[in-house]
Amino acid sequence: MTETNISSNPEALRIGVALYPGFEALDAFGPLNCLNDLSRTESITLSVLASTLDPVSTKTPAYPAGIGQSIVPTHTFANAPALDVLLVPGGQGSRGSSPVVLETIAFIRDSYPSLKYLITVCTGAGLAARAGVLDGRRATTNKKAWKDIIVLGPEVKWVARARWVTDGNIWTSSGVSAGIDVTLAWIEELFGKDKAKVIADGNEYTRHEDPDFDPFAELYGLA
Amino acid sequence: MTETNISSNPEALRIGVALYPGFEALDAFGPLNCLNDLSRTESITLSVLASTLDPVSTKTPAYPAGIGQSIVPTHTFANAPALDVLLVPGGQGSRGSSPVVLETIAFIRDSYPSLKYLITVCTGAGLAARAGVLDGRRATTNKKAWKDIIVLGPEVKWVARARWVTDGNIWTSSGVSAGIDVTLAWIEELFGKDKAKVIADGNEYTRHEDPDFDPFAELYGLA
Repeated sequence: MTETNISSNPEALRIGVALYPGFEALDAFGPLNCLNDLSRTESITLSVLASTLDPVSTKTPAYPAGIGQSIVPTHTFANAPALDVLLVPGGQGSRGSSPVVLETIAFIRDSYPSLKYLITVCTGAGLAARAGVLDGRRATTNKKAWKDIIVLGPEVKWVARARWVTDGNIWTSSGVSAGIDVTLAWIEELFGKDKAKVIADGNEYTRHEDPDFDPFAELYGLA
Repeated sequence: MTETNISSNPEALRIGVALYPGFEALDAFGPLNCLNDLSRTESITLSVLASTLDPVSTKTPAYPAGIGQSIVPTHTFANAPALDVLLVPGGQGSRGSSPVVLETIAFIRDSYPSLKYLITVCTGAGLAARAGVLDGRRATTNKKAWKDIIVLGPEVKWVARARWVTDGNIWTSSGVSAGIDVTLAWIEELFGKDKAKVIADGNEYTRHEDPDFDPFAELYGLA
């Protein structure tokens, strides 16, 4: 990339995504696609983080005959580089207390104090809640899984009707595709409305720009 | 998965996705997330196909400082299993005539005659056009890249204003996120409206159910 493609950012924004087996593909790749596009004009690094360097599958034991795809990590949680932003997708694999789930939670807990931003998608908020970093904060999560997730964070101020919620440096989104909207809103906050629009338009994506847009809260009986 | 999770399909639907370096992440993972969800109740196999078994990155030489993610193939094009459905994402990497692009085009050409369905997303239609399988058919593609793609298929009946287009067993979608809508429409066709709705709702995705929905044709001066 030539310098003309790099914005006037003083330094690269260091983003990490925390993966674990059974993460939901679109939870990660909706936001990552926006960030991939952003990196064509802004200076960004990405670390794909996981428990080990083995490829991480979207498959979970919950659906053993289901199909999945495997993503290659760039770093383990143990050797993660310094990060400015951590993205945490949700998925069936975020449930339970397997060693890899507990390791993911510990990584969120340990890395949060030095982050500029934490972004969770869907039931990724359950992992952040279990890490304790949402205590006292307003946050949202997947609406279908609502009741299973909110019990994981009794000190969290859960917001049922929201496409996404911001509280301080924590941005939490509702289920799956809402990750695209929270990421575009975050890009708008940091890089401006035009940048977010160019990315959304390039993806032929009709954004939900209202953080309170949420027909799914009603659909799942939470309104 | 227990048998109660398998539908009454007589046999598993064999789906393949053709990847190449510089495919657009959401072009593949929007549809694949829907198919992952579908596989929780329907009998489906997935082959992740590429030129070699090396992980395939979303990065392209067009943006050398950009970020990307790498996906692990399950089969090479040369040893691909028999397929019922082939999904072809678009992306910057579909441009030009590198050996891997030509190999992807040859795979589409060679596999099409035995497919039940071909689904392309975004500039994936350009690869299908170059394979000759869109000749005489109605098809659409990414609206921002429109002029670059339609010249690749002078015998194709290109439809400028469309979220997606079906002609026979070929389903082509407009850019990036339109892949989610074409996949949900295809799921509706094969598995019924309720199945498509459950998947869309589970992803908290507000579908575009009208194939003629297309504000982006106008945005990019094609209306």
